[in-house]
Amino acid sequence: MSSKLIAIVAGVGPGTGASVARKFAQTYPVVLLARKPENYEGLAQEINQSGGKALGISTDVADSKSVKNAVQKIKEEFGNDVGAAAAIFNASGGFLRTPFLELPEDVFTTSLKVSANGGFNFAQAALPLLLKGVEQKSKYPPSLIFTGATASVKSNAQMASFATGKWALRALSQSLAREFGPKGVHVSHAIIDGVIDIPRTKEWLKDLGPEAKLSADAIANDYWWLHTQPVTNFTWEIDLRPAIEKW
Amino acid sequence: MSSKLIAIVAGVGPGTGASVARKFAQTYPVVLLARKPENYEGLAQEINQSGGKALGISTDVADSKSVKNAVQKIKEEFGNDVGAAAAIFNASGGFLRTPFLELPEDVFTTSLKVSANGGFNFAQAALPLLLKGVEQKSKYPPSLIFTGATASVKSNAQMASFATGKWALRALSQSLAREFGPKGVHVSHAIIDGVIDIPRTKEWLKDLGPEAKLSADAIANDYWWLHTQPVTNFTWEIDLRPAIEKW
Amino acid sequence: MSSKLIAIVAGVGPGTGASVARKFAQTYPVVLLARKPENYEGLAQEINQSGGKALGISTDVADSKSVKNAVQKIKEEFGNDVGAAAAIFNASGGFLRTPFLELPEDVFTTSLKVSANGGFNFAQAALPLLLKGVEQKSKYPPSLIFTGATASVKSNAQMASFATGKWALRALSQSLAREFGPKGVHVSHAIIDGVIDIPRTKEWLKDLGPEAKLSADAIANDYWWLHTQPVTNFTWEIDLRPAIEKW
Amino acid sequence: MSSKLIAIVAGVGPGTGASVARKFAQTYPVVLLARKPENYEGLAQEINQSGGKALGISTDVADSKSVKNAVQKIKEEFGNDVGAAAAIFNASGGFLRTPFLELPEDVFTTSLKVSANGGFNFAQAALPLLLKGVEQKSKYPPSLIFTGATASVKSNAQMASFATGKWALRALSQSLAREFGPKGVHVSHAIIDGVIDIPRTKEWLKDLGPEAKLSADAIANDYWWLHTQPVTNFTWEIDLRPAIEKW
Repeated sequence: MSSKLIAIVAGVGPGTGASVARKFAQTYPVVLLARKPENYEGLAQEINQSGGKALGISTDVADSKSVKNAVQKIKEEFGNDVGAAAAIFNASGGFLRTPFLELPEDVFTTSLKVSANGGFNFAQAALPLLLKGVEQKSKYPPSLIFTGATASVKSNAQMASFATGKWALRALSQSLAREFGPKGVHVSHAIIDGVIDIPRTKEWLKDLGPEAKLSADAIANDYWWLHTQPVTNFTWEIDLRPAIEKW
Repeated sequence: MSSKLIAIVAGVGPGTGASVARKFAQTYPVVLLARKPENYEGLAQEINQSGGKALGISTDVADSKSVKNAVQKIKEEFGNDVGAAAAIFNASGGFLRTPFLELPEDVFTTSLKVSANGGFNFAQAALPLLLKGVEQKSKYPPSLIFTGATASVKSNAQMASFATGKWALRALSQSLAREFGPKGVHVSHAIIDGVIDIPRTKEWLKDLGPEAKLSADAIANDYWWLHTQPVTNFTWEIDLRPAIEKW
Repeated sequence: MSSKLIAIVAGVGPGTGASVARKFAQTYPVVLLARKPENYEGLAQEINQSGGKALGISTDVADSKSVKNAVQKIKEEFGNDVGAAAAIFNASGGFLRTPFLELPEDVFTTSLKVSANGGFNFAQAALPLLLKGVEQKSKYPPSLIFTGATASVKSNAQMASFATGKWALRALSQSLAREFGPKGVHVSHAIIDGVIDIPRTKEWLKDLGPEAKLSADAIANDYWWLHTQPVTNFTWEIDLRPAIEKW
Repeated sequence: MSSKLIAIVAGVGPGTGASVARKFAQTYPVVLLARKPENYEGLAQEINQSGGKALGISTDVADSKSVKNAVQKIKEEFGNDVGAAAAIFNASGGFLRTPFLELPEDVFTTSLKVSANGGFNFAQAALPLLLKGVEQKSKYPPSLIFTGATASVKSNAQMASFATGKWALRALSQSLAREFGPKGVHVSHAIIDGVIDIPRTKEWLKDLGPEAKLSADAIANDYWWLHTQPVTNFTWEIDLRPAIEKW
């Protein structure tokens, strides 16, 4: 791999984040951000052993200092002039589906912080690297992709602690798409409308068959497709759902 | 005035908040919440002197303790069993229209806190009183109204510090409308799409004539209309703009 | 009644159309358009006998000649200079909820014609009268209101024959709002999201209680409210649903 | 080429239609539908001479008989059991950007007929072939893709003759996505938000540089990407615009 450009994935876990990291690691050195080392260590090892390059950094996206520290470590590893070809924000805070009057303030606040402040911190850290990717004439337009959910466009009863942050993140991505598209950075937002097939959801929707859940690897392919769109044909938003999903 | 039900207006200033307070004060005792006493003192005096009843309380909606303290003062004044006929959230944090990479973190955070956390804190404080209003068979369904803006549905370049909070607030209002409508509380969201005619905007859009700006008193009438809708005909969302506004 | 301005209601039947006609007849002479005389005769009689003025005209809104003929009759009755204070489009074609491949072409075509071509024909006929209302300085900005449905914003499986026309009508109303707002005509669109309580739906949703259906009279009040908004505060769109409706 | 499945493209001209046809012709025999033979003859010849297979059929999508006749010719050529892997609706009627009261009825009607009735006719003709594609276990889920425009989601002043049909078509595509997704057919809608770079638009936006217009070939790539999504990850809608486009 000779690219001097890197890909950064925030919110690496056993699902979409890992699949996206593996996919982009086929072309770029990847930086894996997650709060807990156990969320990226195995994956980094796997990528490094199979011919790719991965660097994991413990990072709390909701904390701007932690994100700035991650950028510092990226520069130590890849040089001060490092540019990014892709930055993917895949983090989500915990939330509770509960009657609103029983929703603890800290659950609401924490969830909002990960999605909204986390999105802000990550974008402020990644965009200078993505703009360097533009300067360095990356093969594909540098991409900033945000992972959304059904709750990014529909705010159901008892879902306020999740939807507020997701709507805020969608607003952020739309504003950035309008500001940074003309500067050559491709900002996208993906509405993941369904259950993703990961170990944690193994028993979910079983009676609906193997096609009832989204494939995380296929989401990664979709993100890669977004990444390869030329500057004349940028997609801001896609929705993704299993064919059998009701919507 | 014999109503035992009150109306609460958060975010009282010289514009919409004051007009809404005056309108609802014709029927209900009103509680005026603003951070600074100078934003409610004159208005409270005006209402109290003209036959209404108003109570101003210094409150920072972004701070849940401050909001809980306001509820405590409301109960001291109106009794522990006080119910609310209406609660209007009209607060907005400051924001900057600026290139995203020059946006200070604290501007983003503060603006988001007022809109999103403020909306949360206000709703958690007001809904128990509004549900008491339902129990006490208020003449009109108790109403929780959120003030939005153009930026509630469109997130323009360089407007991330305003739009993220406004989208989050809209998500909150939609979730609450779905949860509390069936309990008899009418939750609404108003998209104010244009400049409001207040002292601060006196010189704005002057060349477009006197009809280029929204009337704050007319917004208050619209909120009153929402408040008087029967339980069979709830409107969640209205947009409001001057006839000559481009959109 | 001394107003020289009239109100026109297209799509008069036993529900919303009749309620709207009665409401506006308290202020304006009303013209009632429906394909079949039995849909307006009783109502016209009722209004004429209770101190109002109503003129019924058999009209097929899907047929531009029929609509032009109605305008001719209006001018014969009210004079060539007659202006309109309000024009309400409440017509809907029949449709079938059926698997798409079993949907007869003529059902699709007829439904689309009533909503889309009907909306077009009605707007082209009414707008010159509404602009005369502006010239004649009507008390309230002349209003052109379109009745929409859940299917105006959501197109469910098997509902193509209804939704296509309703989306087209919403598009028409939005385009007209943008063009004629600056000319002083208030164009609105109402999303009626639920079952309206009319004789035909008497047995529907009975187990949910008396508040499960929209009140047609309350819809008429909402339309009247839209009509009375000042030129500084136009609402393009409202949604309306029973408090207990799931959405 | 050994596929027994075909691709059908309606609305073949010098732009998107031709690019899509060339792209899908690399894998499938393609059927080219256009009203005028000059719109498909050269393209069919080009594809047939370069190792692909193309069949052009003069078809007016607004006329259901003409569309049925095309299906008849397809079966004569490819057999009664022919299945389709893809069907792309790319037709648009002429329209006028003009003050609404000067818009001739026949312009409105014709434009609506091509988009709305045309979409209906094409979908009723293509879906049985696409369902055969499902039965015949096509490599990729059979795809029905509709081409939309900015005017599919925004209805500007003076644009009613274009937007009504485009909104109707979007409604059709959404209803079909919900009905036929569970049957294995992937229905999509693409919002083309900008000027496409074709001979007719050669002189447009020249001062903005070569990246100001959408590439038709890149649109074709995007449609191919939609086509290859697995059944667990269907996208209903994408938007596409040049990076520098204001939106």
